[in-house]
Amino acid sequence: MTAGTAANDTRSRLLDTALKLFSVHGVEGTSLQMIADELGVTKAAVYYHFKTKDEIAEAVAAPAVQELDQVIEAARARRTRGAQIDHALAGFVEVIVRHRLLLGLYNSDPGIQRVINRTFQAPRGEDIKTRMMLVLAGKDPSLADAITVHVVFTGIAMVGGAPEYAGIDDDTLRQHLLDAARRLLGRPRGKGPGKRLPEPALRRSPGV
Amino acid sequence: MTAGTAANDTRSRLLDTALKLFSVHGVEGTSLQMIADELGVTKAAVYYHFKTKDEIAEAVAAPAVQELDQVIEAARARRTRGAQIDHALAGFVEVIVRHRLLLGLYNSDPGIQRVINRTFQAPRGEDIKTRMMLVLAGKDPSLADAITVHVVFTGIAMVGGAPEYAGIDDDTLRQHLLDAARRLLGRPRGKGPGKRLPEPALRRSPGV
Repeated sequence: MTAGTAANDTRSRLLDTALKLFSVHGVEGTSLQMIADELGVTKAAVYYHFKTKDEIAEAVAAPAVQELDQVIEAARARRTRGAQIDHALAGFVEVIVRHRLLLGLYNSDPGIQRVINRTFQAPRGEDIKTRMMLVLAGKDPSLADAITVHVVFTGIAMVGGAPEYAGIDDDTLRQHLLDAARRLLGRPRGKGPGKRLPEPALRRSPGV
Repeated sequence: MTAGTAANDTRSRLLDTALKLFSVHGVEGTSLQMIADELGVTKAAVYYHFKTKDEIAEAVAAPAVQELDQVIEAARARRTRGAQIDHALAGFVEVIVRHRLLLGLYNSDPGIQRVINRTFQAPRGEDIKTRMMLVLAGKDPSLADAITVHVVFTGIAMVGGAPEYAGIDDDTLRQHLLDAARRLLGRPRGKGPGKRLPEPALRRSPGV
């Protein structure tokens, strides 16, 4: 998931291991010792990187939250409402699929929910879900539109992390989720198999 | 929520109280003693009705699971696919809204998830979510259709229990959720404000 550089290798492996253990045992059911054992290092080596399990959970969730933040900012920079929605949907689905293991955990584990909901606030001092809803539903949407967008938004997030689809490869899941989201929100479909949506900005931004 | 008869009054009050406490403290964070205190009875009085907290959680969730089961059976009895889908959607939304406090708990608390997922299996030995998906998406749906229906299904359940809409009255929430679900799944809308969908069968079945 987090393809770390050589310098960050241990930290990166630690986060990958923590996510896998969280997925099996829940955040509450995973100890620093279990993470150390699974990595084959001492607990002191884990402590070198993180002081608490909450810090690990935050670091596990941070890339997805940052990527969502960038998707929203890039979407908001688009000129037309249609382009904003298209960009937000494609980017949202991209992040969901790239972090599907984390999503599955988020959808079922209050330990990670607590942490993510806290970091959700972080990047720009505003709730990331509220900002994503603002891009997708527009300013002052009717209650009907807000509920429709909310259903699609939460549905995509739930299904993206659903164990039922764990066996489906990323590309297939991404395409189907995006098709479903676009269809459900009344966005026109691509003209044919060669037509691809533009890559979400997070792929093109330097430093990601 | 559960309008008990006089005979079942204590049991019914106990379940209402338990649901409220579960919603505030989580299932794990609620003790039998807390339920007794809130009810103003002794712990022995609680024990008279339920031996464990899991039994209480099961009893809290049971009416919604039974109602969903009846919705599915009644939907399956309809002749056309369209009528089956319409019945299943209307009934699903009805159950979701009637049990929105339970849904909100289910969406955020693994304690109640564990219990409900177990009782979900109960009524006919089959997973209720799978059976609802079968009615909504049909037999052997394409992956695209399965994912679309799954997005709408989980989205409706999440939004129905979402704290964001806690201030909206039941009728308004029900109408908007149903409109959204029908629109998202391509079902025709009612012809006007006077046009109402048929009441879900669970309202008409004897013994409910």
